[in-house]
Amino acid sequence: MSLKYDKGTEKSKNWLITETQFQPEALGKVEAVFSLGNGYMGLRSTTEERYANEARGNFVAGTFNKFLGDKEVTELPNAADMTEMIFTLNGDTFQLTDGDILDFDRTLNLKDAELSRHIHWRSPSGSEYKLIFTRFVSLDNKHIIAQKVAITPLSSDLTLTLRSGINGQMTNTGTQHFKEGVLRLYDQKIMKLEAHTTESNIDFVHFSQHAFKKENINFTPKNTIFMDRRKIFTAFEPGIIKKNETVTIEKVSGVYTSRDKDWIDVDTALANFTSTSDYDTLFQAHRNAWESQVWEQYPIQIEGVDFDQLAIRFAIYHLTGMTPVHDNRMNISAKGLSGEGYKGHAFWDTEIFVLPFFTTSNPKIARQLLEYRSLSIPGAVRKAIDNNYEGAMFPWESAWLEDGEVTPVWGAADIITGEPTKIWSGFIEQHITADIAFAVWQYYQFTGDQDFMEKHGYELLFATAVFWQSRLEEKGNRYEITGVVGPDEYKEHVDNNAFTNYMAHWNLEKAIHYHDLLQEKNPELLASLSAKWDLPNNYQKWQEKAAKLYLPQPNTELVIPQDDTYLSKKIIDLAPYKEASQVGALFLDYNLDQVNDMQITKQADVMILLYLLENEFSPEVKQANWDYYEPKTLHDSSLSRATHSILASDLGDKDLAYSMFEKASRIDLGPNMKSSDAGIHAASIGGIWQVVVNGFGGVRMLDGKLYLHPHLPEKWTALQFPIYWKGSRLEIKVTQESTTITNTSDNAVALALNGTEISILANTTFTTN
Amino acid sequence: MSLKYDKGTEKSKNWLITETQFQPEALGKVEAVFSLGNGYMGLRSTTEERYANEARGNFVAGTFNKFLGDKEVTELPNAADMTEMIFTLNGDTFQLTDGDILDFDRTLNLKDAELSRHIHWRSPSGSEYKLIFTRFVSLDNKHIIAQKVAITPLSSDLTLTLRSGINGQMTNTGTQHFKEGVLRLYDQKIMKLEAHTTESNIDFVHFSQHAFKKENINFTPKNTIFMDRRKIFTAFEPGIIKKNETVTIEKVSGVYTSRDKDWIDVDTALANFTSTSDYDTLFQAHRNAWESQVWEQYPIQIEGVDFDQLAIRFAIYHLTGMTPVHDNRMNISAKGLSGEGYKGHAFWDTEIFVLPFFTTSNPKIARQLLEYRSLSIPGAVRKAIDNNYEGAMFPWESAWLEDGEVTPVWGAADIITGEPTKIWSGFIEQHITADIAFAVWQYYQFTGDQDFMEKHGYELLFATAVFWQSRLEEKGNRYEITGVVGPDEYKEHVDNNAFTNYMAHWNLEKAIHYHDLLQEKNPELLASLSAKWDLPNNYQKWQEKAAKLYLPQPNTELVIPQDDTYLSKKIIDLAPYKEASQVGALFLDYNLDQVNDMQITKQADVMILLYLLENEFSPEVKQANWDYYEPKTLHDSSLSRATHSILASDLGDKDLAYSMFEKASRIDLGPNMKSSDAGIHAASIGGIWQVVVNGFGGVRMLDGKLYLHPHLPEKWTALQFPIYWKGSRLEIKVTQESTTITNTSDNAVALALNGTEISILANTTFTTN
Repeated sequence: MSLKYDKGTEKSKNWLITETQFQPEALGKVEAVFSLGNGYMGLRSTTEERYANEARGNFVAGTFNKFLGDKEVTELPNAADMTEMIFTLNGDTFQLTDGDILDFDRTLNLKDAELSRHIHWRSPSGSEYKLIFTRFVSLDNKHIIAQKVAITPLSSDLTLTLRSGINGQMTNTGTQHFKEGVLRLYDQKIMKLEAHTTESNIDFVHFSQHAFKKENINFTPKNTIFMDRRKIFTAFEPGIIKKNETVTIEKVSGVYTSRDKDWIDVDTALANFTSTSDYDTLFQAHRNAWESQVWEQYPIQIEGVDFDQLAIRFAIYHLTGMTPVHDNRMNISAKGLSGEGYKGHAFWDTEIFVLPFFTTSNPKIARQLLEYRSLSIPGAVRKAIDNNYEGAMFPWESAWLEDGEVTPVWGAADIITGEPTKIWSGFIEQHITADIAFAVWQYYQFTGDQDFMEKHGYELLFATAVFWQSRLEEKGNRYEITGVVGPDEYKEHVDNNAFTNYMAHWNLEKAIHYHDLLQEKNPELLASLSAKWDLPNNYQKWQEKAAKLYLPQPNTELVIPQDDTYLSKKIIDLAPYKEASQVGALFLDYNLDQVNDMQITKQADVMILLYLLENEFSPEVKQANWDYYEPKTLHDSSLSRATHSILASDLGDKDLAYSMFEKASRIDLGPNMKSSDAGIHAASIGGIWQVVVNGFGGVRMLDGKLYLHPHLPEKWTALQFPIYWKGSRLEIKVTQESTTITNTSDNAVALALNGTEISILANTTFTTN
Repeated sequence: MSLKYDKGTEKSKNWLITETQFQPEALGKVEAVFSLGNGYMGLRSTTEERYANEARGNFVAGTFNKFLGDKEVTELPNAADMTEMIFTLNGDTFQLTDGDILDFDRTLNLKDAELSRHIHWRSPSGSEYKLIFTRFVSLDNKHIIAQKVAITPLSSDLTLTLRSGINGQMTNTGTQHFKEGVLRLYDQKIMKLEAHTTESNIDFVHFSQHAFKKENINFTPKNTIFMDRRKIFTAFEPGIIKKNETVTIEKVSGVYTSRDKDWIDVDTALANFTSTSDYDTLFQAHRNAWESQVWEQYPIQIEGVDFDQLAIRFAIYHLTGMTPVHDNRMNISAKGLSGEGYKGHAFWDTEIFVLPFFTTSNPKIARQLLEYRSLSIPGAVRKAIDNNYEGAMFPWESAWLEDGEVTPVWGAADIITGEPTKIWSGFIEQHITADIAFAVWQYYQFTGDQDFMEKHGYELLFATAVFWQSRLEEKGNRYEITGVVGPDEYKEHVDNNAFTNYMAHWNLEKAIHYHDLLQEKNPELLASLSAKWDLPNNYQKWQEKAAKLYLPQPNTELVIPQDDTYLSKKIIDLAPYKEASQVGALFLDYNLDQVNDMQITKQADVMILLYLLENEFSPEVKQANWDYYEPKTLHDSSLSRATHSILASDLGDKDLAYSMFEKASRIDLGPNMKSSDAGIHAASIGGIWQVVVNGFGGVRMLDGKLYLHPHLPEKWTALQFPIYWKGSRLEIKVTQESTTITNTSDNAVALALNGTEISILANTTFTTN
């Protein structure tokens, strides 16, 4: 894989990711890693021309649809492709697999979120051309994709033809989510393609229009409209371009759907689209939006290792592109909007791995994402009822608000039986309900957002606790949770998974605490919630059951059993699988039943418990569990290494922490050619930020108090980042010598810095020495 | 386009069509022209490896399904692809767009219906390999596709990997017709993929298995099963192949559906598949089937022009591949089973262009195809009722028996308004009802098949005549047919299209004739049909209306007006469009409304009337109409030139007849790279046979009598073909000097040879001198 990270210099330094060689076998990686997005839609970075192994994709957040059949669950449909442009240059179709590539680069500029390609191409018939492609998905007008292509013939005059339009033949790996709608050309200029999801009945309308310039003079070429099935396109014949002159083609496209909050009808969408401007003007607004909404908001600086500076920007770039900040009925998909993987569904990845970034850096967005869970309570209640429980049992995979549980039931092949493997997560991976409660509490502690708590937060804490009390099983004189999947998905149907039991216990305790608090401070609100959630009855059960809930304790070696049987299982040599470049290599040799009987952990399980509830465990317990579990952990989930890195920082092992970070930050950016094909890894990207700010920066909230205990990697000379605490923005700079905190707000902020409690006055800077 | 027709020598002479150069821009042409079929299924000849512009397709006859939405009509779904095989050779994925092609040919052998590729390839990393691919779709076991790949490393040892399986992500240009079904591996060997059509609920089951040989020794390589969405495949690692040694991989696949007449269940299908043999054994049975069922049955020989000999074999090859002789509930699609074009629907193409081949050369198959129309009467009756008519109004486009009319309503873009054009054929192109009646009568005259007539034929003649009497409009003292589309589809909503009126009249007259005959010879049958079709009442109307039906007469220049207004329309210079390589070039300059007002004809209209009802018109009228209409005819339908060629033969213009034939026989075979992409042209292929046998061979049936009046092209030295007449097989040989007829049957056969009535005794040969 020939991705380069050091092509940017001066103002572009550590902002550019560059593919320096055309690699038809690695298209998917670049399509996802270079994908463009604005939270409204995500566009995979396939090229204007088509290739055999490409996976073109444009996903509009929240537009879920379910196709017919037992094996289907609702997913984000792949909308019509508006980016295809097929150029014929003196009779040769432009295609990098033909002719010779004399020069090539493809670059994602993280700063202005523009993708560009520079190509010097010799056609099969021997003519040379310079081609420059640029495009962006506007952060300013979220419906708009803009493309520009500049072509210069270098060895002779050029007779150019272009076929370009809107192609609605896209599918999700074969599944077609759209009924075909009206095709139309307006004013000999604007192509329109309508489509309608088959089951959820969402209307989509797509528009594209073109503009031509020869040596910067606008002109209108001869053009002919064609309609095909699910497809409308125009053949343009711009005539002859003289040698060394440049023809520029701009294509501006827009997509609007009836799921948009401001949707009126197709005509209104057309009027909106018609009012858009040219590429350069649109780009200026887009660039300004990135500057003001993103880079000024999150000016994280890492000095010492250029790649690491770029990696944190890469994380923020994708965190921006994947998050539907425009609509609280939507959440973040495990692959963002960059591919079909995980079908656009939201997992605990949001609350545990991504949300801390927003809670800490942009609380307004964090609130919206938590509101999504609040609006999803009806589906969670239905799931609880379907499973004979009470309260809100949140779905393992979540899509549209009312959908409830949408985890697919069947997965990959069992290598022993030849049959598909059943996916149990949707049935028994239950910790997500506590994870959501945890994120609510974390958000509240960081922000002090009382309005949120009154409208959504208390109800989320109570509704989840109602679920847990109904879920606990009385076994003798204690309560247990049996038959679950914990974070380690290589162990199914286990009893008393430590993470699950501790988090459920935490959830119950927090509900009790806030019940008591509301009784005192806001009895009216408590009364209304009591009626809805039968709190008098539940409160009693919370107290009784929380006290008797079994919490697995460290054994004589200080190891917390991951579940009731883990420690008694067979241990095998994992070295070959830990070194394998392929995630899941283990399953080429064993099936899940066999792995179930071994001490093999997919990802942080006990370890993430030690991170989330860190002040319940001693450093010795943490070290003992790290030493026991890490060698047995394959890190086969992208969620694993970031957690391990942060714990290593806590344990004072800077080298280990940094080496874990190096691996974590290369999950998408690194050399693995295939692992990002189905989309980037949202949780891992959130994890990169957590390692930087919570690990190396040492930012932590414990029991409602802010802690700062930096552990700067040896190779870094400085780290700067902003955080919000109770509405105040703190700008923190850590060097090997000192820590500087600037309180930019009008309120004093109290925190514990390296173990010492301090208060930083309004609009002042504090520095250690 | 580098198709060569002369690569076959000696026993292969005029049997091979060879592509001599890999042309990624012309994949579609070869996929269709080289497609393999057995009437049960048709497999487009895409390659084992994948390319960007390919259109993989496998169509199982009769398995129609309709997707959701107003714009969809039922169509033949694109079944799962079982041919994909991705080879990695010492780390390089085999792909002809990469590396260098040192030698290449791809050959369709018409004689044994085997497709082969010979490739000498240098990989991007510089190693050379010889690869030989062969495959066939069995005519012996119609469920089976067999492939063989032989790979020889030429410059070093080879580490080979293969990914091969069944891919159900196929769509019909974006439309997905299948719900996903069970995936499974049996016995570590047989992959299974099930799928179910979304609306018609047809079960499909696909199987694939592999066998490996190294230097002819069987072995089982390491293999790993993978399942993905709608996809099951196996990764094989056959280890190291020594330099200059050959590894051979056989892949045998099968498809079975619940539409099969002998369908029981998936387990039975699996048992059937499991009992299949290896490639070579399967191939022997397949080859024998082609020899005995096809080439011995239709041993047509043309001497003098090699291409013409190959062209007629090409026609018979595809006529065999496209015709579902196994099931009388199915008919022939306008594109055969070679592509998505026309959605697998049957048109008048069957009765007027293809059926004469079977009626003349294999009457049993002709009968089955006509039985399909008989079984489709309920849908035709429903269409009549929906349109306020009576009797059987056959659909312009026909699919499954009960479906009735399935013509899509919306077509290509109107270049003036930018909106889609409405397709009127399904509403008002009504001549097909008479065309079917005509084919019934033609079949009866050739075969004397009284059993067919009693079970199906009389009813078809009567039911169609009932439609026509209900369709006729009383205008003053005559009956007219207004507001129709004739064969010339560039004229919509015309009044008294000559072809339609004459054929309707013919239909009524034939119904009257056979009604009279049955009254005398089989009153019981007549009684039962009378009850069903209200014949007493209808018979009276037939007589009254047929007598008064307006039949446009030749004008003073002997020209028959194509319709009431055609001759008064504007005449434009068609030269640029007649010479254009692109069908439909006219519509880049005019829209259909404009063309409607010009004397422009898409295809034979009056001309086909002069052919079908030839003894109702004098030679002078034929010549005058040829001279008038041909210059105004764009031949934009593949149905046009064959008819013109035959008429030119009749008119004695051998050169013109031959030049029309040359063009007709190159519609699929010729140099046009794009026109066959969506499938071969079934009617044109039937037309090639008609030009040879009915035109140059001069075989004709008039008023129930057999005529033979050969017009051998100057360039031909001999033409031999068989025909059946009343159950007797005649073998006819025409040279420039003489005509020889061998009656191979035990009955004497009477015919008119070059105007002289003769009778050829049983088992004798007659030669002119």
